[in-house]
Amino acid sequence: MTIDYPARRARLAAALAAHEVPALLVTSPVNVRYLTGLVSSNAAVLVRADGSALLATDNRYIDMTRALDVTAVEAPDVTGRLAGPGVGIEAAAMSVAAFRRLNEGLGEGAGLVPLGPVVEELRAVKDEAELELIRTACALTDQAFADVLPLIAPGLTERAVARLLDNRMTELGADKPAFDTIVAAGENGAIPHHAPTDRELRAGDLVTMDFGARYRGYHADMTRTVCLGEPAGWQRDLYDLVRRAQGAGRHALTPGAEAKDVDAAARGLIEAAGHGDHFRHGLGHGVGLEIHEDPFLGPSRTGRLEDRVPITVEPGIYLPERGGVRIEDTLVTREGGPELFTKTTKELLVL
Amino acid sequence: MTIDYPARRARLAAALAAHEVPALLVTSPVNVRYLTGLVSSNAAVLVRADGSALLATDNRYIDMTRALDVTAVEAPDVTGRLAGPGVGIEAAAMSVAAFRRLNEGLGEGAGLVPLGPVVEELRAVKDEAELELIRTACALTDQAFADVLPLIAPGLTERAVARLLDNRMTELGADKPAFDTIVAAGENGAIPHHAPTDRELRAGDLVTMDFGARYRGYHADMTRTVCLGEPAGWQRDLYDLVRRAQGAGRHALTPGAEAKDVDAAARGLIEAAGHGDHFRHGLGHGVGLEIHEDPFLGPSRTGRLEDRVPITVEPGIYLPERGGVRIEDTLVTREGGPELFTKTTKELLVL
Repeated sequence: MTIDYPARRARLAAALAAHEVPALLVTSPVNVRYLTGLVSSNAAVLVRADGSALLATDNRYIDMTRALDVTAVEAPDVTGRLAGPGVGIEAAAMSVAAFRRLNEGLGEGAGLVPLGPVVEELRAVKDEAELELIRTACALTDQAFADVLPLIAPGLTERAVARLLDNRMTELGADKPAFDTIVAAGENGAIPHHAPTDRELRAGDLVTMDFGARYRGYHADMTRTVCLGEPAGWQRDLYDLVRRAQGAGRHALTPGAEAKDVDAAARGLIEAAGHGDHFRHGLGHGVGLEIHEDPFLGPSRTGRLEDRVPITVEPGIYLPERGGVRIEDTLVTREGGPELFTKTTKELLVL
Repeated sequence: MTIDYPARRARLAAALAAHEVPALLVTSPVNVRYLTGLVSSNAAVLVRADGSALLATDNRYIDMTRALDVTAVEAPDVTGRLAGPGVGIEAAAMSVAAFRRLNEGLGEGAGLVPLGPVVEELRAVKDEAELELIRTACALTDQAFADVLPLIAPGLTERAVARLLDNRMTELGADKPAFDTIVAAGENGAIPHHAPTDRELRAGDLVTMDFGARYRGYHADMTRTVCLGEPAGWQRDLYDLVRRAQGAGRHALTPGAEAKDVDAAARGLIEAAGHGDHFRHGLGHGVGLEIHEDPFLGPSRTGRLEDRVPITVEPGIYLPERGGVRIEDTLVTREGGPELFTKTTKELLVL
């Protein structure tokens, strides 16, 4: 499946009328990639309301633009080359320093117009070519987990387990890990964003692994918690609760559902069990060209889900100084029920 | 060696007087780490002119602040918690969206004051604890190269070589690769920032590898170009020229030297040989908590080098559709001559 970049730019052009700007200066590297296919740390694209576009990048990347279906110019100062009076900019992507510099060049009363996440809103609903890439990223993630699982044993450090997962994902064809892999053993499992340490895995530990592959720019995100040896009663109870909450969240994931209602479907079960204070992050987030992107699922998130939105469902319970459990899948909303991309079992694995 | 974070904040506090602000709201994650030790994707620290400081982060990271020697508060909106009338902000790190939102909260005439790279300027000169970390990062890089070198042979893909280097660095103790490893074989060597592909290495290729380890947040950066089989005359000539230019750049690297003069020392040799148009990037850049940081070496860069500034020297010559050579070391400026951190030989390695 090929990606139709001109169609994406046409959708953006159509959206500009509502913002009353003649053009949008796109500077977020991910958005530049989305609209043109160029992967560069120094590029910008001006998309005009008539659908035409001009891409600017520096001499390191200009050769790559020849294969693209967009007009490109080489410029050491890519935003300076494209900025113009009254042009919209991505307020979340442009720094205050860049904004001030560009506005000085434009003069009084002709300044750039800060806009919200215009391109991000277009990106939330994926086309089938994108879904296929995310599906592949998730399949690589599943496979890496299956391959590494037999190697996980007491004595290995958290860092060593993370390395095994990362290496296996890239061996299988991932661009690289989608984000810094989390491996949290025993008491470290109580820290949702724990960075792997030299702590060795021990019998009796719950071990949470949160990782994913990036494939051609698209991200997978999966978390599984396993138990080293027979779980204690509290460990099994915690796991079962998180698993039921995760299932409830997944089942609430339908086009038209409110973001906060999906969160509540999972959170309600955890709160009812008295663990509301031990689940203090949102239920999930969109995935695509970014590992965290619109939409977000949380108690105070507004908006409704659309069709074909890849998203995670990842409840967790974190007991200070004891440990934690998190179970996370990447799925995509579909009429008729979500499609599950990460297919690794959610039975409690006892190693 | 331990890092004296209060001393760093005291240096920043002393620098604030010149900017006429009562405090600086530091939001760059790297600068927050530099000033407090906290590694977080959502934290900010307010450093006041009297040297006191307040760190804010969300509930995912608040537990980590207990081990730090700075007062910390938990806040979902970290910048909103710390912003105040007339406070300075890091203009290059704060988005236009965040700046507008915070200023709205402060009201008319009491806005935040955009400042330049105040903390970055403090970071350019490293203390001995930092130099030791960069030295270690470079030693891991050297060792990974030595270990992988015997495995490099025709038939391996660029991606496979990159994976070998990345895996070996993390096995040896790196946090992770310092940046996306570049492996460019044959004609791909003409692209300075080439991303590894499935192109297989072949006899007769020059192969450029640009990579480095990150160790406890600090970066190494090294490039070597090797030849698969006996080099042709043009390949050896190109290599010798780049090697001489690299040596000239290293020798020009003394405290007090102008950034553009160091660049010219290397570039002059390349231009004299008629390859000026084939070396279109700067000669080098500072390294530290970021892979690219102040100071930068280039034809139009101003300023003088100070003592104890880790920096790369990396001339390259890129011949379109034929290939290229780049040789890069990480060094640190010292009175009496630079200390070389990356110690891998710069003889042309024929594999």
